[in-house]
Amino acid sequence: MKKIKGGVTSPKGFKAAATAGGIKYQNRDDMALIASDVPCKVAGTFTKNIVKAAPVKWCQEIVKNSENAQAVVVNSGIANACTGTQGYAYCQETAGEVAKVLNISQNAVLIGSTGVIGKQLPIDKIKVGIQNLCKIKSDLLESGTKAAKAIMTTDTAEKELAVEIELDGVTVTIGGMCKGSGMIHPDMCTMLSFVTSDVAISKDLLQKALSVVVDDTYNMISVDGDTSTNDTVLLMANGMAGNTLIKEENDDYHKFIEALKEINTCLAKKIAGDGEGATALFEAKVIGAESKEQAKIISKSIITSSLTKAAIFGHDANWGRILCAMGYSGAIFDPEKVDLFFESVAGKMQIIKDGVALDYSEAEATKILSQEAVTAIADIKMGGESATAWGCDLTYDYIKINADYRS
Amino acid sequence: MKKIKGGVTSPKGFKAAATAGGIKYQNRDDMALIASDVPCKVAGTFTKNIVKAAPVKWCQEIVKNSENAQAVVVNSGIANACTGTQGYAYCQETAGEVAKVLNISQNAVLIGSTGVIGKQLPIDKIKVGIQNLCKIKSDLLESGTKAAKAIMTTDTAEKELAVEIELDGVTVTIGGMCKGSGMIHPDMCTMLSFVTSDVAISKDLLQKALSVVVDDTYNMISVDGDTSTNDTVLLMANGMAGNTLIKEENDDYHKFIEALKEINTCLAKKIAGDGEGATALFEAKVIGAESKEQAKIISKSIITSSLTKAAIFGHDANWGRILCAMGYSGAIFDPEKVDLFFESVAGKMQIIKDGVALDYSEAEATKILSQEAVTAIADIKMGGESATAWGCDLTYDYIKINADYRS
Repeated sequence: MKKIKGGVTSPKGFKAAATAGGIKYQNRDDMALIASDVPCKVAGTFTKNIVKAAPVKWCQEIVKNSENAQAVVVNSGIANACTGTQGYAYCQETAGEVAKVLNISQNAVLIGSTGVIGKQLPIDKIKVGIQNLCKIKSDLLESGTKAAKAIMTTDTAEKELAVEIELDGVTVTIGGMCKGSGMIHPDMCTMLSFVTSDVAISKDLLQKALSVVVDDTYNMISVDGDTSTNDTVLLMANGMAGNTLIKEENDDYHKFIEALKEINTCLAKKIAGDGEGATALFEAKVIGAESKEQAKIISKSIITSSLTKAAIFGHDANWGRILCAMGYSGAIFDPEKVDLFFESVAGKMQIIKDGVALDYSEAEATKILSQEAVTAIADIKMGGESATAWGCDLTYDYIKINADYRS
Repeated sequence: MKKIKGGVTSPKGFKAAATAGGIKYQNRDDMALIASDVPCKVAGTFTKNIVKAAPVKWCQEIVKNSENAQAVVVNSGIANACTGTQGYAYCQETAGEVAKVLNISQNAVLIGSTGVIGKQLPIDKIKVGIQNLCKIKSDLLESGTKAAKAIMTTDTAEKELAVEIELDGVTVTIGGMCKGSGMIHPDMCTMLSFVTSDVAISKDLLQKALSVVVDDTYNMISVDGDTSTNDTVLLMANGMAGNTLIKEENDDYHKFIEALKEINTCLAKKIAGDGEGATALFEAKVIGAESKEQAKIISKSIITSSLTKAAIFGHDANWGRILCAMGYSGAIFDPEKVDLFFESVAGKMQIIKDGVALDYSEAEATKILSQEAVTAIADIKMGGESATAWGCDLTYDYIKINADYRS
C-alpha cells in the first residue's frame, strides 16, 4: 500500500469541482461536485440519529435501490435537516438539476449537506451553483482539494487523502475527502465523508467492506458527544482500474479492506484532531481486553469525557478522570488491575500500576501531554484484544465557536 | 408541606459542625460532621461507576449491614478514590476515631470524601479535625450551614434546605445539604448529599423511599456527563419527631415521599444550576410521552448535549441542536410531530411545530434565553407521561476550572 498525494480525483475517471454558491458564507466556495465518467457501485453508511436530514434519507434510498450512482453534490452552510417535506422536495430538485446537466439518471445523484439545522436551502442559488460545478469539473488533483475545502464548516483545514494498492499486478487507487469538526460523535459514521475508487467490486462486497471499516474508524471518534443528523459516508467504485472483479472475500478483497481502512482511519483522525477549538488530537488505546467490543466501549468513554478533555487542554496528567471515565463506560473490568501510560513524540511514561499512582514526574508528564497528538494507553490485563478511539481536547474556543454558531 | 429556613440540623436531635482540617485548601473549612443524639435508620444510594471510592465502599457496607448509623464525617479536597487498600484502611481509621470520641460503634459512622482522585488522605490531619468537630458540634442552624460550606469543592455556594410536614398531627422535619459542581452525571445519585429527618420509619421503607426519589431527582441532572467515583446520597432518620412508626406504604409514607422528593429536587437543581462555570440552570421537560422512561431518556439527552449547552450560554435559540439530541437519545419518537417551546421568567414561546420552525422572533427568544433559569419543553404527542431533567450551560469557565483543577 502506498500513500500518494491526492484525494477524490486520484482514482481513474473521477472529476471534482467547487464553486461559491452563496448559500450562507460570503467569498468562499460552499458547493462541491464529485462525478465519475462511468456509472459506479455505491455503498453508504448513515447516522443512527432518528432525526435524519433530508439528504440522508435521499442517499439511503439511492444506496439501497439504485443499481448505480455517478455523482455527488454537496453544500456547506445549511444542513437541510428538520426541514420537512419541503426539504426532501429540494433534494429531488437538486438531483434533478445535476441529472439534467450531466445527462445521467436522477437516481444516480447523491447529495450531502452540512451546516445549520432547520433552515431551508435557497434552491435557486443551488441550481445556479450546479450549472457552474458541472461546467468546471476536472480530474486535476487541485479540483479534489478545492472540493474538500468547499465542504468545510467550522473545520480549520481540508481533509483529503489517497492510497494505491496493487491487485494482481493492476494499480487500484482509493481517494477520500471528509469534513467534520463539531457535532461529532458518529454512530454509524461521521459528518460527511466521500471516498472514491477505481476498483472493480460487487455492490454487496463494497457495502460490506465499508460497514466493517466504518466501525473501526469513524465510529471510534468523538468531538463533543453529539451524534449529528447528517452523518454520511459514501463510497463510490467505478471499476476503471481494470482489476479482476472482486466478487468474493478473497485476497484482493482483504487488500482492498486494508487500504480502505487506512484511508478512513486517516480521515477520521483528521476530523478528531480538527475538532472544534481543539489544540490536540487525543488518542485512547485500550489493550489487554477480553473482547474488542469491551476495548471499544472503554476507549470511546475515555475520549468522550469532558473532564478528561479539559485536562488534556491543560496538559495535566489528571489520570483519575481517565480511570473514572473507564469506570462509568458500562464495560466490566477490575480497576485494581489497570496500568496506565501516557505517550507522545516527547516520550512514554507509566502513570499508574494496578490502579494506584506511581511516583512519576509531573513535569515529565506535562511535557508528554504538551504535544499536538497525545495517547493514553490503558492495559486492563484480561486478554489479548485492543481498540483505539480518537478525540480532542476541550478548549475555550469550542465554547466560542458554539455559543454563537448561527450568527 | 412547608419550606423552612434550615438544613441538616433542622430535624430534632441532629447536630453539625465544620472545621479547617488543612486537607488541601488553606484558610477554609474542609471537614464536616453530622451527628444524631440517638441511633438512626440509614438509607443510601451510590455511584454505579465500577471505579468506586473507598468511602463509597465503606458506606455501602454500613448501609447494608449495620442496624443503625449515628454520624457522618465528610472531607473536601481529596476524594480517596483509586487509593487501593491503604485508602480503605484510612476509612476504618477515620470511622474508628469518630466512634472513639463520640462513644458510638465504628459501624455507625458513615464517611464522605470529595476532591482530587488518586491522592491519599493525610490521616493525622483528619484525626485532629475529627477531635475538633466532635467538640464544637451543635444543633444551631448556622452549624448546618457551616457544614454545607465545608463540603464544597468547585461549588460557588452552599446548598441546603429543610421542610416540615405533619403526620397525624405530629411535625416531622427533613433537612438536607449537598455539594457538586463538576463530574456530575449521576447514575444512581450525585456527588455528595446528606439528608436528615426525625421521622420514625422502618429501614426498608426508608431505603425504598430514597431509591424512588433519587431516580427522579439526582439521576435527572448532569453537568458534564462524567459519572463520579464518589456519588453518594445518605438519608438518616432518628425517629425523634415521635410520629407513629411508618412500617407500610400508607398515607404517612406517601406524605414523607412527597417531602423527600421536594428536598431532593431542590438540592439536585442547586447542583445543576451551580454546575462548574455555569451562568444558567437549564431545564428540559418532555411531555406527551408514551412512558416515563422514554421521557426521561429524551430529557436527559437534551441537557447533556454539549452543543445545546453552549447555545444556552450564547442565549441562542438553536433548536436544531435540541432536536438532534432528542434524536440520538436512543428513544423512539416521530421527529415530525415534535412541538418545542422555550420558557423562562421572561415569557414562553413556541419555536417549532410538527418538527419544523415557526416564524418566531429571534430577539424575543434571546430575551427568554437570557435568564438565570431557562426551560425547553418538548411535546412528542405520543401519550400522557412526562419527565424533567436539569443541567446548565457550557461556558469558558468550565474549561478554566477543569484545565487546571489539580494545581
